[in-house]
Amino acid sequence: MELELIDKLVTKNDKKIIFLIMDGLGGLPQSPGGQTELEMAQTPNLDRLAASGTCGLLDPVGFGITPGSGPAHFALFGYDPVKYNVGRGLLSAAGLDFPLAEGDLYMRANFATVNAQGLITDRRAGRLATEKNEAICRKLQEKINLSSGAQAFFKTEKEHRALVALRGGDLCEEIAETDPQKTGLPPLEPVELIPQAKKTAAIMRELTEKIKNVLAEEKTANAILLRGYARYRRFPSMTERFGLKPLAIASYPMYKGIARLLGMELASETQTIEEEIQALHDNYQRHDFFFVHIKYTDSRGEDGQFAEKVKVIEKIDTLIPDVCALNPDVLVVTGDHSTPAVMSGHSWHPVPVLLSAATCRPDLATSFGERSCITGGLGRMPMKQLLGVALAHAGKLQKFGA
Amino acid sequence: MELELIDKLVTKNDKKIIFLIMDGLGGLPQSPGGQTELEMAQTPNLDRLAASGTCGLLDPVGFGITPGSGPAHFALFGYDPVKYNVGRGLLSAAGLDFPLAEGDLYMRANFATVNAQGLITDRRAGRLATEKNEAICRKLQEKINLSSGAQAFFKTEKEHRALVALRGGDLCEEIAETDPQKTGLPPLEPVELIPQAKKTAAIMRELTEKIKNVLAEEKTANAILLRGYARYRRFPSMTERFGLKPLAIASYPMYKGIARLLGMELASETQTIEEEIQALHDNYQRHDFFFVHIKYTDSRGEDGQFAEKVKVIEKIDTLIPDVCALNPDVLVVTGDHSTPAVMSGHSWHPVPVLLSAATCRPDLATSFGERSCITGGLGRMPMKQLLGVALAHAGKLQKFGA
Repeated sequence: MELELIDKLVTKNDKKIIFLIMDGLGGLPQSPGGQTELEMAQTPNLDRLAASGTCGLLDPVGFGITPGSGPAHFALFGYDPVKYNVGRGLLSAAGLDFPLAEGDLYMRANFATVNAQGLITDRRAGRLATEKNEAICRKLQEKINLSSGAQAFFKTEKEHRALVALRGGDLCEEIAETDPQKTGLPPLEPVELIPQAKKTAAIMRELTEKIKNVLAEEKTANAILLRGYARYRRFPSMTERFGLKPLAIASYPMYKGIARLLGMELASETQTIEEEIQALHDNYQRHDFFFVHIKYTDSRGEDGQFAEKVKVIEKIDTLIPDVCALNPDVLVVTGDHSTPAVMSGHSWHPVPVLLSAATCRPDLATSFGERSCITGGLGRMPMKQLLGVALAHAGKLQKFGA
Repeated sequence: MELELIDKLVTKNDKKIIFLIMDGLGGLPQSPGGQTELEMAQTPNLDRLAASGTCGLLDPVGFGITPGSGPAHFALFGYDPVKYNVGRGLLSAAGLDFPLAEGDLYMRANFATVNAQGLITDRRAGRLATEKNEAICRKLQEKINLSSGAQAFFKTEKEHRALVALRGGDLCEEIAETDPQKTGLPPLEPVELIPQAKKTAAIMRELTEKIKNVLAEEKTANAILLRGYARYRRFPSMTERFGLKPLAIASYPMYKGIARLLGMELASETQTIEEEIQALHDNYQRHDFFFVHIKYTDSRGEDGQFAEKVKVIEKIDTLIPDVCALNPDVLVVTGDHSTPAVMSGHSWHPVPVLLSAATCRPDLATSFGERSCITGGLGRMPMKQLLGVALAHAGKLQKFGA
């Protein structure tokens, strides 16, 4: 990999950086000209940090681009989200701590329901119970042997979601997804998309055929839909690139997966935001970069619950003094992308950010909100550049040139 | 062509986007600290849109770069103005609806006046009457046959301006321009600039020699000056790239030319701004992207007429309700570049922009003007990224990555 400029300037020290990431933080008002979720929230502690620190607005991928969580998090950690774009299968595999190996092919799977005509009636098999998913995965693991010598692995994620991994041979990812992404259609054939993928496509056909036979006995989860194909890929770690000893405090598999792929250590299991902050305290001495991931802002946004998203933000604000008590050299509070409750989904709007450090130059932002951040000293900047700014404030970057 | 990221994310729907382009919109005050043309203009309708929408400042090509109208318009439509930079000859040819063909070489021509010593005394031949230009072009077309077998075409543009096209053989554009761009010098020789252009240079020498002989009978238009050489080139259309059905409403050949090169349909001839807005209404159902080009802001700027430019802007403001009556999903109002009346020409200053859509996040801009746009939510952005933002607000871009 060609090194980025900041990689070449890295110098190590003991300074500590905290990235407090409220997933889907950016928002929109409920009515024209009104306040966004963050602006509406009572956040005296974040406002104080915004006033004393430097604020701005981040573009996760680019102007007008709505990012998935994968690219957005890569950008947060200083990885070009386009260059390092990777299929969901690999993120799932890493999230489940599946032992990754060179040559593997990873796929995101949905258990689904098809009718007597073979047409999909429910892409999520009635949001299958996780235990049922586990039982089905065990059965598939037991019964499926591929004549090609390739090995298939089945791992439950949650509800209707699972990971399917193929190992053996130099597998290609250029295969058609079998998930048509809508009901009323049959699962699609896993045909090759480039001539070199012919061998993989043959293995995939045998795999889907055999899965189909095993699932034929099931009532609701009687089909599988595959997508997000990704070959194994190794990423330069944050330690290699930035000399950091990073720790991830995250409770959702996908974010754990990204953290693992970038060489972060994972804190032990946490459920609540309070437990996450506690984990930060418990591990503070042994690391110098902390990724604290808070999922609930995004979940409430996805569900279209404006008031609930406001409450999550207010809850986090009450925990800010606990974070500041650690006296981090650099504290960054931002999101990975916007998830406006009024859109019930991710959006392209830039994400408010505040950076607090001793070396912050005062700006015009006096509170933490989208409008206020327009007047921040960071301006509007690409998210992938944020880590470099944090490293600079932590004294971890040398001068460039004489 | 390698696709840009947004090209890959395009999804079609029926949403409609209007780009209302006031050519040369950006300005400067008449005295230090005063108001620009746009700030001075009474624009209650634009101000209302600016307050409810999102504002910003656009850099057509880059910081400090003064663009010609060609690059500026390419940027407006999402085409990298440096990558897609193209000689004026091709823009002229497309503007005149000349039947373009692979291998052609297009040149912008000025009829000029030379004295007995062959030195240029007027680069515009006294701004020749268009009818006279037409008569001369007919004569040249009739009399000039090239021994090389290449064919020359002569088409009147307006006043002293014409198009010269060469067809036959694989012609090169790396030939010295014969226009020295000042008086007191003779027209230059069309020598080759690279060895591969030798054959084309020989054809060009024969062409300019024969033109000279025909023009020898003329009193004022007794010489021709050639520049802006451009080979035929095909551009990926806005339909191919963005799935749009674009319509251009423009009355000047150059803008029509750019629109044709990018695959836009052209509305029938319009003269006034009112007619342009009427054409927008007449064609609204059959298209989903509308480029409405208003030339007069630029013309008044070029002529150094500050007050007149203000009046044009005020006139357009009165027509904004007619545009809004269509309820476009996305309405963008901006310019292609700045043409401050006090500079009587294009400038590098960024161009104010407003974008109005249901998904706009409130910002701090309360009126439409250069200063106000500094506090806009779009920030300062490359003009070529604007179309992607408009597509996003129209729901025409899918999420990037999982």
